[in-house]
Amino acid sequence: MNSNRPIGVFDSGIGGLTVVHALRRLLPGESLVYLGDTARVPYGTKSHATIERYTLQAGAILQRYDPKLLVIACNTASAHGLAALQAVAPCPVLGVIEPGAAMAAQVEGPVGILGTIATVQSGAYEGAIRRRRPEAEIHSLACPLLVSLAEEGWLDDPITTEICERYLKALPESVRTIVLGCTHYPALRPSLDRARPGTTWIDSGDVTAEAVDALLKNSAGYRIESSKGPLRVLLTDASSRLQEVGSRFLGESLESVELVEL
Amino acid sequence: MNSNRPIGVFDSGIGGLTVVHALRRLLPGESLVYLGDTARVPYGTKSHATIERYTLQAGAILQRYDPKLLVIACNTASAHGLAALQAVAPCPVLGVIEPGAAMAAQVEGPVGILGTIATVQSGAYEGAIRRRRPEAEIHSLACPLLVSLAEEGWLDDPITTEICERYLKALPESVRTIVLGCTHYPALRPSLDRARPGTTWIDSGDVTAEAVDALLKNSAGYRIESSKGPLRVLLTDASSRLQEVGSRFLGESLESVELVEL
Repeated sequence: MNSNRPIGVFDSGIGGLTVVHALRRLLPGESLVYLGDTARVPYGTKSHATIERYTLQAGAILQRYDPKLLVIACNTASAHGLAALQAVAPCPVLGVIEPGAAMAAQVEGPVGILGTIATVQSGAYEGAIRRRRPEAEIHSLACPLLVSLAEEGWLDDPITTEICERYLKALPESVRTIVLGCTHYPALRPSLDRARPGTTWIDSGDVTAEAVDALLKNSAGYRIESSKGPLRVLLTDASSRLQEVGSRFLGESLESVELVEL
Repeated sequence: MNSNRPIGVFDSGIGGLTVVHALRRLLPGESLVYLGDTARVPYGTKSHATIERYTLQAGAILQRYDPKLLVIACNTASAHGLAALQAVAPCPVLGVIEPGAAMAAQVEGPVGILGTIATVQSGAYEGAIRRRRPEAEIHSLACPLLVSLAEEGWLDDPITTEICERYLKALPESVRTIVLGCTHYPALRPSLDRARPGTTWIDSGDVTAEAVDALLKNSAGYRIESSKGPLRVLLTDASSRLQEVGSRFLGESLESVELVEL
């Protein structure tokens, strides 16, 4: 089965472009429509009701492009808005938490979860890991400053390392596998590595791309064209700085951006 | 002339509570209605068009309380939304930039301005200072991380000091007076002081409270009651953490908060 319909990708801002990057590497032929709610970013400090409402609004916009599949490429929106969007969307909806949790559940020993305040408060990772491994030892940690540091571009930086060290020292020494439970965090890998050498990091973008591949294979269908698929980027607010930082997350130049209202 | 109508105060989030704090100290009898757009905070990384639109929406909500005066207690919203709101509001509207700039224009020697990306890009402080002192030497600096550090509560902290040092070293040594051009920044005074000892900081909250006092005296009128005036706080998103950090900015317990939709 094939389908040339696009994959819709939603994020609270531009952090989800790290997931688009992973998707384009694994599934280069797919057509993608990305919607970043940059006018209302960040979601990580907002309440459940607000995040759920925003996620439903974003899903409605993406439905205009008749997607074969929706990906919520934001851990916070996945934690608070996935169930509500799945209940109303006419196509499958995939979040980033289930794939990350599935990978984490395979790990022996304790697992750490780094995320925004809202993601950690939701308990979504704990629930998803414990469904697969009920006895799992899980340590969750909110790291509110890391999103700002990634957006400021201080990716490989002594101050970022110091902040990562301060956050990470709250995790027991025995934790050797840590889920990067926010799509901004993979950009900070150099600083995270220095702050906690020898850690195995689970990148929710990579594992989500794998989950999308499995879903296309088993139900929604791949795009027929073998040439590089088009990428359309919709943002609710745009600026030259957003395009610059977004290009870094995407791993390619983010040239044309369309403004939409949410 | 007297008027028991409230003063409406608008901010992108809860940083404007530092301005409310200054107002309640100088004008304790006044009735205040505060609106914080916490669902869409921060504004400092958003575009002119979006900030202007949000400011007009907030002004419309505050008009329901029939205010005698509106204060935009946010430098970013003042820089991008003041003129538009003044054009439609049926009462006087005061921003935080003019009072800060008036104070800065009285200083001999070069002046520094710290603000969000959007405030610095607007050039609003430069314009307002140069109208009063055309030959002024002004150095503006965007400090995007400082809002997040204030919201994280790392107010008097070695890492915050280090980040302040990194930002502030971009200003020439000759700059001895610096405007805190964001309502979050006064909360970071201990770290700022350590990063640049001997600096005179101009707090936009304090000088705005003085400007409100002058405007009440000369036109809008003081409230008659001498007892402490009521404070009503409306937020577009609420959480226990917001109330905790908000209480710190306000200098008193932020007990009851009403949710509104923007």
